[in-house]
Amino acid sequence: MKIGILGTGNVGRALAAGWSGAGHDVVLGSRRPDDTGLRAELAAALGEAVPVVDVSSAVAGAGVVVNATPGTASVPLLAEVGAPALAGKVLLDVAVGFTEDGALSHLGESLGEEIQRSYPDTMVVKTLCTIDSELMVAPDSLEGPSTVFLSGDDAEAKRTVGGLLNDLGWPTESLLDLGGIATARGQEHYSLLFLGIAGAIGAYGFGIRVVPPARS
Amino acid sequence: MKIGILGTGNVGRALAAGWSGAGHDVVLGSRRPDDTGLRAELAAALGEAVPVVDVSSAVAGAGVVVNATPGTASVPLLAEVGAPALAGKVLLDVAVGFTEDGALSHLGESLGEEIQRSYPDTMVVKTLCTIDSELMVAPDSLEGPSTVFLSGDDAEAKRTVGGLLNDLGWPTESLLDLGGIATARGQEHYSLLFLGIAGAIGAYGFGIRVVPPARS
Repeated sequence: MKIGILGTGNVGRALAAGWSGAGHDVVLGSRRPDDTGLRAELAAALGEAVPVVDVSSAVAGAGVVVNATPGTASVPLLAEVGAPALAGKVLLDVAVGFTEDGALSHLGESLGEEIQRSYPDTMVVKTLCTIDSELMVAPDSLEGPSTVFLSGDDAEAKRTVGGLLNDLGWPTESLLDLGGIATARGQEHYSLLFLGIAGAIGAYGFGIRVVPPARS
Repeated sequence: MKIGILGTGNVGRALAAGWSGAGHDVVLGSRRPDDTGLRAELAAALGEAVPVVDVSSAVAGAGVVVNATPGTASVPLLAEVGAPALAGKVLLDVAVGFTEDGALSHLGESLGEEIQRSYPDTMVVKTLCTIDSELMVAPDSLEGPSTVFLSGDDAEAKRTVGGLLNDLGWPTESLLDLGGIATARGQEHYSLLFLGIAGAIGAYGFGIRVVPPARS
């Protein structure tokens, strides 16, 4: 699978390492691909296996595009790429937007929905936004199984993303398909509880597991 | 412990049965305590062990007041009771407000915070709002342990509420103190993910467990 990851922060780097290690053909898309400092930093973190290119090139060559940009930067960045380049592609959206005062940028709505609405010919799947970047690629680092959620309107795109989650180490029984992209709201609004739990336990590397009723 | 529960819906009834069964002295406070239909319904559900009184009487006799009213009705109902009657008491707040179109009524904020701000001499503790009423009093109905959250500014009030949660069957290791009442935001905003999960698994009687990092 050719994966173009937009964003070179902690999330982009973790996912690039994870999927590259699983044998996928990964490129990182950056707004400043010629920044020698950034290139050196990424080479130190990821080796030479993951090329750094401009965002349009990252999208052009990819079957799956990953939005790992800050949630408040995602919409303008995707607008630069443009709808024709994104049409027909799966867009795996990991981002959550926070305003400067720490509030959700898409309160009562979701970034996932905004992206899907703006690019109706792209298949947006929201996932992985309920966990920290290090955990995204290391589900075995937890004490036991936890749940990862998927939201998206296109069933085939969710299957593709489910396979990519498997490749990061998330077993299929840990994946929970919440339904259409409108359910991204739940994933994104959970961020507030995520931050509360992180403060309480003093760590970001935790999961949540949906605990079902006991079988009778 | 004398417990005055405001609200006679599913949540009020479940909690009344749970705490009454644990040996507490429980009354239900209703805006229409003389409604014979309601009285008959509550007697059928709870027996005669739980008296139904008006809301002011329920608060006056209680050490712990429980807000189990619909989240959009809570503020006007507490205003009827008044700050002097609520002063010095623990208010265990379970409510989440939804507008008619299904959105959170306290988006970007929380009902728990609004109540605490309105009644500074009352010790508000938000809890149990992340789970369904039947599960509140039957944590053993799940496949395994799940987590219940507490938010409140007063440590002693949280200890009192923690004891009441123990009495419902929640072991201390399942309780997670998130911090001050501002963290009620996380609990209330989780409702959107709760509804998504409920839709996906086709049941309301599930919990979530915070899964910590494995001990190294």
